[in-house]
Amino acid sequence: MDDREILNLTSKLQHANVLGTILDLLQWDEQVNLPVASGSRRSEQIALMSKLFHRASTDVAIGERLSSLEGRPEALSANDRTIIRWARRDFDRATRLPSAFVAEKSRLDSEAYHVWRDARERSDFDRFAPFLRRQIEMTRRAAGYVGWGERPYDYCIDCHDPGMTAGEISGLFETLRAGLVPLVREITASPAQPQTDWLHGFPVAEQDAFLRDVVQALGFDFTRGRIDVAVHPFCSGDAADTRLTTRFQEDEPLDSLYSAIHETGHGLYEQGLPMRHLGTPLGKAVGMAVHESQSRLWENQVGRSRQFWQHFESRFRRAFPRQTEGISFDEIHAAVNAVRPTAIRVDADEVTYNLHILVRFDLERRLFSGELDVSELPAEWNRLYRDWVGVVPASDAEGILQDVHWAGGMFGYFPSYCLGNMIAAQLWAAVQRAISDLSQDFTRGHFGRLLGWLRENVHQVGRRYDTRELVQKVTGEEISPAHLLKYLRDRYGSLYLPETR
Amino acid sequence: MDDREILNLTSKLQHANVLGTILDLLQWDEQVNLPVASGSRRSEQIALMSKLFHRASTDVAIGERLSSLEGRPEALSANDRTIIRWARRDFDRATRLPSAFVAEKSRLDSEAYHVWRDARERSDFDRFAPFLRRQIEMTRRAAGYVGWGERPYDYCIDCHDPGMTAGEISGLFETLRAGLVPLVREITASPAQPQTDWLHGFPVAEQDAFLRDVVQALGFDFTRGRIDVAVHPFCSGDAADTRLTTRFQEDEPLDSLYSAIHETGHGLYEQGLPMRHLGTPLGKAVGMAVHESQSRLWENQVGRSRQFWQHFESRFRRAFPRQTEGISFDEIHAAVNAVRPTAIRVDADEVTYNLHILVRFDLERRLFSGELDVSELPAEWNRLYRDWVGVVPASDAEGILQDVHWAGGMFGYFPSYCLGNMIAAQLWAAVQRAISDLSQDFTRGHFGRLLGWLRENVHQVGRRYDTRELVQKVTGEEISPAHLLKYLRDRYGSLYLPETR
Repeated sequence: MDDREILNLTSKLQHANVLGTILDLLQWDEQVNLPVASGSRRSEQIALMSKLFHRASTDVAIGERLSSLEGRPEALSANDRTIIRWARRDFDRATRLPSAFVAEKSRLDSEAYHVWRDARERSDFDRFAPFLRRQIEMTRRAAGYVGWGERPYDYCIDCHDPGMTAGEISGLFETLRAGLVPLVREITASPAQPQTDWLHGFPVAEQDAFLRDVVQALGFDFTRGRIDVAVHPFCSGDAADTRLTTRFQEDEPLDSLYSAIHETGHGLYEQGLPMRHLGTPLGKAVGMAVHESQSRLWENQVGRSRQFWQHFESRFRRAFPRQTEGISFDEIHAAVNAVRPTAIRVDADEVTYNLHILVRFDLERRLFSGELDVSELPAEWNRLYRDWVGVVPASDAEGILQDVHWAGGMFGYFPSYCLGNMIAAQLWAAVQRAISDLSQDFTRGHFGRLLGWLRENVHQVGRRYDTRELVQKVTGEEISPAHLLKYLRDRYGSLYLPETR
Repeated sequence: MDDREILNLTSKLQHANVLGTILDLLQWDEQVNLPVASGSRRSEQIALMSKLFHRASTDVAIGERLSSLEGRPEALSANDRTIIRWARRDFDRATRLPSAFVAEKSRLDSEAYHVWRDARERSDFDRFAPFLRRQIEMTRRAAGYVGWGERPYDYCIDCHDPGMTAGEISGLFETLRAGLVPLVREITASPAQPQTDWLHGFPVAEQDAFLRDVVQALGFDFTRGRIDVAVHPFCSGDAADTRLTTRFQEDEPLDSLYSAIHETGHGLYEQGLPMRHLGTPLGKAVGMAVHESQSRLWENQVGRSRQFWQHFESRFRRAFPRQTEGISFDEIHAAVNAVRPTAIRVDADEVTYNLHILVRFDLERRLFSGELDVSELPAEWNRLYRDWVGVVPASDAEGILQDVHWAGGMFGYFPSYCLGNMIAAQLWAAVQRAISDLSQDFTRGHFGRLLGWLRENVHQVGRRYDTRELVQKVTGEEISPAHLLKYLRDRYGSLYLPETR
């Protein structure tokens, strides 16, 4: 009887999920293939599929089935309970927002997006400020509907990283900042600055062939995935059909390569999720931070390591003989790890990137606690950039207005990036304890032992645990910035500050 | 009041149409992009969207609206009446088949497809015969449900080419055959056979660049369309987003080029349909034969003409300098128009292609009239190929089993190809009467006057008329094989039989 009820529930969840995968494909195709003048047709298709997906996800029969199953937990397996816990959370969040509110939010998102674009172009924060205020207000209301009225910012964070809170993140970020700001100052002041002026004139066809070899070697399964070109790289799809993107410029060969490796990390996670549970919470990623930990681990811990380049150096030189002539191995490795503070988040290196996030988190947290008013944002933004990143934005367009997230009311999303970096470093420390000489594999182009460990400990677990629980289970400790700080100091110390080692 | 009712009807038709376009995209992506091991996910997506599309197309509210509007024709505009006429036809065909029948047919299609593949591989017609019998039987039943019980084969033809009948086509094909068989014999016996052995080693990248230039020059709008690679070339989408495909082999440069031009003809028709009526019958193509007339006109009348090559010769030689060295203009033009009887339809040239269709039509017609039994098919097939095409298939695999159509119960589909060729030649004669020196445009790479005439006379008309009415309106005569015969004799006479001119 219970078996039949749980099967009925999962079949409804999977039905909604198939609609979701079609929506994903429409959006992937929009970024990768859509002819420039075909946008209005695509908007129609996406609006219709979104409606069908929402309708299927909020089917009253799901709620009835959940209530019935929740009434007899003793009859359920651990897997069933996991499915029910997450399905309840998703169902409540999808059904508790009144439709008038959803419509108002959708209108605001669209309007605010256009205002933000315009405001950024004219570097006019005042134009954007009232829309940002309204998005904050709408977020407070949403939190209220869903039952998080007292803690709207925690609600935002929980949406992306179940189990995390602003208070906990504050503590982690505080410690991270205390270690990171001086490290960046030391790096910036170091006389050992890498040369990067040789990184131009890399033909796109050879970049493409080289990075495909890399993506394949890392373990990405091209029989159920592909890689294409998009303006903003992303990973779409799930284990059944995983689609990566990157972008190419002749003078930015590292951008295309590391975008591809980053997205490969996301793709390997998706491809590693348990196939038999696809479309149910057991076949889904835990959240944004864990997802980001996978992309960052492959991009940074693996892809920027000496051992990675020891293997790929000869392939790289064969692809670009003229461009790499006279450039030593150490110079290649240094260029790949160049650290240069900038005002723009998406241009940041592995080290300073975290500081961009700390600024945003600090401002979001204070906006929601009432300590900070929207009108004070530009000045606060510039002050924190000066004190923490060591750069003052030339204008609000290159400062407070640079990101699209807030225009869409996406608060609590930024911290995931930095949490992902922390978790990546923590997993990296754990896998090195578990597998001796792991990095030596890379020098021979073998990444299977690392991937196998991640599959077993992270990917196959699906959503069995929340973010904190997962990290605790896999690494034996709570989430901590110590590993990230140690890893950054080790790697960048040896590159920039050899005398301190 | 009527206005509101017709708006309500068209909005329901457009809703179903948007679902149909999503289904199209899933199928396009399956042919162009889908990773090899992602097929089962795609099947799920396609099955679900097919169900949603069918449900929306058979919405009882459409039937009610139609009945109400049909009750007061005097209040309707000509456009409204056109919409209602076709919507009624489509609605009846979608709703009159019992769902048990549809399910049985769908199972049979799937089973018969696999049996056919297996039978073709083993060249074992007897294995396939019972499934072909069942498909014929199912088609008779479908015709009965829809109200065509007395004329099942006419029903099949009407499904693809509204307004055409087997009797009429018989007469047309009879005349065509009487002219074509002797022409092919003369061509085959001619001493003036073209050289084609220089057509190998054409790099794919250059083929791709060359054919993109051609497709663009013909007038295909890349701002709302694209061209990609697929194993079997096709055209997908509609005026809002038109997607062509071709395929490449280094030793088949004409295959990729003429596949692309053929699909461009389909694409130009779709892009020319009236945008404001998209999703209603007024924004749809008349049928298969008219669609095929557009692809064939561009592929053959335009793309294989001397004038076309007078313009593109220099671009072709620049793309393939080594391959075309020592090959004269006349030799290029002759190779493009090589006529060589073959047992395989999809490999056939412009002249003999029609004979392949006449064989299939003759057999289909006699199968449905009861003159022929399935067991007699292989012998009849081989006899007609010998007498008409002048080739005897080496085996049933290369004979009666070569096409997939019958395995899916697609009867009445083949004649459209040949009707398309007839209509193309008839339109070609009409446009030359209307625009003097039209072909001279091509020598300068100008195709706009031809496209403009087709836009105005064929594309913008949408489905206002059925196949026969359209040809009558545009050319001033009934559909006739005379133009095709004259065109073929002119072009191929000058190439193969110069003394007869």
